[in-house]
Amino acid sequence: MSENKKISNKEITSREEDYSQWYNDLVLKGGLADYSAVRGCMVIKPYGYALWENMRDQLDRMFKETGHVNAYFPLFIPKSFLSKEAAHVEGFAKECAVVTHYRLKNNEAGDGIIVDPDAKLEEELIVRPTSETIIWNTYKDWIQSYRDLPLLINQWANVVRWEMRTRLFLRTAEFLWQEGHTAHATKEEAVEETERMLEVYARFLEEYMAVPVVKGVKTANERFAGAEDTYCIEALMQDGKALQAGTSHFLGQNFAKAFEVQFLNKENKQEYVWATSWGVSTRLVGALVMAHSDDRGLVLPPRIAPLQVVIVPIYKGNESKPGIDAKAKEIAAQLKSKGISVKFDDNDNTRPGWKFSEYELKGVPVRIALGARDIENNVAEIVRRDSLEKSVVSLEQIADTVKDLLEAIQKNMFDKALNYRNEHITKANSWEEFVQLLDTKAGFISAHWDGDSATEEKIKEETKATIRCIPLNNPQEEGTCILTGKPSSQRVLFARAY
Amino acid sequence: MSENKKISNKEITSREEDYSQWYNDLVLKGGLADYSAVRGCMVIKPYGYALWENMRDQLDRMFKETGHVNAYFPLFIPKSFLSKEAAHVEGFAKECAVVTHYRLKNNEAGDGIIVDPDAKLEEELIVRPTSETIIWNTYKDWIQSYRDLPLLINQWANVVRWEMRTRLFLRTAEFLWQEGHTAHATKEEAVEETERMLEVYARFLEEYMAVPVVKGVKTANERFAGAEDTYCIEALMQDGKALQAGTSHFLGQNFAKAFEVQFLNKENKQEYVWATSWGVSTRLVGALVMAHSDDRGLVLPPRIAPLQVVIVPIYKGNESKPGIDAKAKEIAAQLKSKGISVKFDDNDNTRPGWKFSEYELKGVPVRIALGARDIENNVAEIVRRDSLEKSVVSLEQIADTVKDLLEAIQKNMFDKALNYRNEHITKANSWEEFVQLLDTKAGFISAHWDGDSATEEKIKEETKATIRCIPLNNPQEEGTCILTGKPSSQRVLFARAY
Repeated sequence: MSENKKISNKEITSREEDYSQWYNDLVLKGGLADYSAVRGCMVIKPYGYALWENMRDQLDRMFKETGHVNAYFPLFIPKSFLSKEAAHVEGFAKECAVVTHYRLKNNEAGDGIIVDPDAKLEEELIVRPTSETIIWNTYKDWIQSYRDLPLLINQWANVVRWEMRTRLFLRTAEFLWQEGHTAHATKEEAVEETERMLEVYARFLEEYMAVPVVKGVKTANERFAGAEDTYCIEALMQDGKALQAGTSHFLGQNFAKAFEVQFLNKENKQEYVWATSWGVSTRLVGALVMAHSDDRGLVLPPRIAPLQVVIVPIYKGNESKPGIDAKAKEIAAQLKSKGISVKFDDNDNTRPGWKFSEYELKGVPVRIALGARDIENNVAEIVRRDSLEKSVVSLEQIADTVKDLLEAIQKNMFDKALNYRNEHITKANSWEEFVQLLDTKAGFISAHWDGDSATEEKIKEETKATIRCIPLNNPQEEGTCILTGKPSSQRVLFARAY
Repeated sequence: MSENKKISNKEITSREEDYSQWYNDLVLKGGLADYSAVRGCMVIKPYGYALWENMRDQLDRMFKETGHVNAYFPLFIPKSFLSKEAAHVEGFAKECAVVTHYRLKNNEAGDGIIVDPDAKLEEELIVRPTSETIIWNTYKDWIQSYRDLPLLINQWANVVRWEMRTRLFLRTAEFLWQEGHTAHATKEEAVEETERMLEVYARFLEEYMAVPVVKGVKTANERFAGAEDTYCIEALMQDGKALQAGTSHFLGQNFAKAFEVQFLNKENKQEYVWATSWGVSTRLVGALVMAHSDDRGLVLPPRIAPLQVVIVPIYKGNESKPGIDAKAKEIAAQLKSKGISVKFDDNDNTRPGWKFSEYELKGVPVRIALGARDIENNVAEIVRRDSLEKSVVSLEQIADTVKDLLEAIQKNMFDKALNYRNEHITKANSWEEFVQLLDTKAGFISAHWDGDSATEEKIKEETKATIRCIPLNNPQEEGTCILTGKPSSQRVLFARAY
């Protein structure tokens, strides 16, 4: 991406110095995204978009394998739709982009354009913050009988939530996401679907992003507005903060009732439809950056890296060039034939050292350096991005070696993140321990809670820690709430979070 | 798509009876799209979206093969940006969705939600009708030197133009599209790019959609607002109306000047950047439907059909089922191994005859019917959707036969459309001839025009025919303008158009 050249040599703030600035440096200088002229909206740059494309394509395959199809619903939602589901309106009818007019005109003073006051909409339109309402209003026409069910539809789209404090990828006013919206004949089927999609998300994060997750259920306080149950996957970032990476909601019959969606069941009786919705977004790109990267730049897992291998030629004088170029192209062709994405960077304008830091910054998993003497010795130097380890490999086996190495890097990145995560789940048995842990050791804190929303709220107010989830298959254990001392039957996971 | 079952048996209006209603019937009953609760916005249904996905994926491959990368720019454009390019504002700052507020609140009367008057934006935001302005405002930060050029970026996105009269796919308020925006160091390079992308579009329509196109240049009147030249591809629909299927614009230095985008050239001098932009949209789905379909339903070209082959079992009593199912699955596996998409429809709830019309309506290119006696005779019955011809083929060669047949269908559809198109380009040498042709023979009319915008305008007012394009490599020929009698050096193509 030529547009990044000019900044790629700049230094990156270290994590220790300023974690938040480190993250911004990586996103901006790594060529993932840029600020835009519109408050809270980002530009996703080509390298960042290629990463998102790889994530999206893999997720899309997994959705299709589990029987889902894609569709597309309108960007705009009539204002009145938001009011139809009582809990939903509280959660979403707040910070929204509102379209009130449909025409501009020349200012009569002749200095630019103004909104035409005669072109006011009868009913304002909301730019979708999520699409349950417009979709269930549509499903009403599509569902009559149990034969029309299940309806397993996903949408890839942009959504807008007018966030006050935004951060590139993690929290932006506009973001890209997918939202699945399914309709079922029975409660059991809908619950199964909710759990199935949570499992798909968990598998995607762990197997492709190399990010281990805790699967769990949200407390009532943290539930999606309009859901009966919100399942989630929670990941841990390198600064010890948690990040909600995906959610899958069992919506009960709430939206079916709000939009009057009934079906004739096998017993020939009208019944309300059962629903789920589930989504992940470009926020995952932020999670990926924070989970793996280091002070030299991005570290990307091979399975979703836009570029897996770069070959950098080391020319010594012009006469070495033709031999090196020929060998490099041969290696590139061998790698491609194994399905590996590879770039031979023979750009004359930059030196090898500059290229090394550039591709480290970009997080390319494997770098091959190739000079005239290497070719004489029938070897090349390989550096893996995750550990920065160097090795010298024979050119005869280079394609197989690199293929194995990519798999080893993928595994190593996951194992490293898993170890870190496991080392950062700590039990607290009293309020003092809890508060002290929050200040001294980052990560998840496993502690007893009395199940009361007011208690949860109070803990949040005092410590900024929230209940991330009640883990699935949570062991039952008698104990007392860290704040109130009331009895509790299980521990839940607290953390400060993004 | 279970949601279509309930309407798929309904009758389709014939083309002769009401062409416009025929089109709507196909789109709605064929399961491509549906009306939505938001004026002018459509819902793209799963089958229609799968078709669009196939078109999008192929176009995306062609863009990448020609060196382009994808990125994503904000949905919103600050109002003032639209005023920066003088011609652009006239073309696009009219029928737009305008965001004026960013918050809703509960109505104090307690009956719903209202727009919070305290949450008025300082500057209104326009939902992008096209993205030149926001993108060139971004390119300003990305381009400093000739080394940053060319910048070859494409975006897949939704856009909104507040059209008064809308039609599913052909003209909707919101639509999906791609917009390429490239930046170059020289005029020659930018013109080359404009022509290259026109060629990509033409190749996509002809080779994948099986729709022949005329490549040409628009007159000044029909040019994109802000372009120095607009190249286009024009296709002919079965009712003889033309449809602009894609445009590629040479923007000169207009946007670079409006957004102050200069670069240091090789001679170390500041120079304005040269630009192009090019786009196609979900309108292509409408073009596809109108170009090929018949009174029984959609006819889809194999290369982009969501489903290429359907196998319908003909059960006679329960005892025949296991044998037929086993053979059908065997055939399906053979087809899949050749990269052919296939569905074995063993649904018990519907009869073969119902399935036959369903898949005809859906435009599935090849239908295989398989009964017990067929299996005894080691044959199956095949019907091709384009010509509805039946044939009986040996089960031994069925996979190869179907593969060849799909290619033959693709070719036949293109040839048929090409013949129709060629038979509907007619020369008119006088005003009388021109007017008579418009009323008696649909299609393109090739006629002399004096090159004056006022003449063009007058012809449009009187006949509703517009100049679709000046074809590329147009033969030079002396003549006189059909309206004014003034001298003309070449014929141009007129038509009534979508």
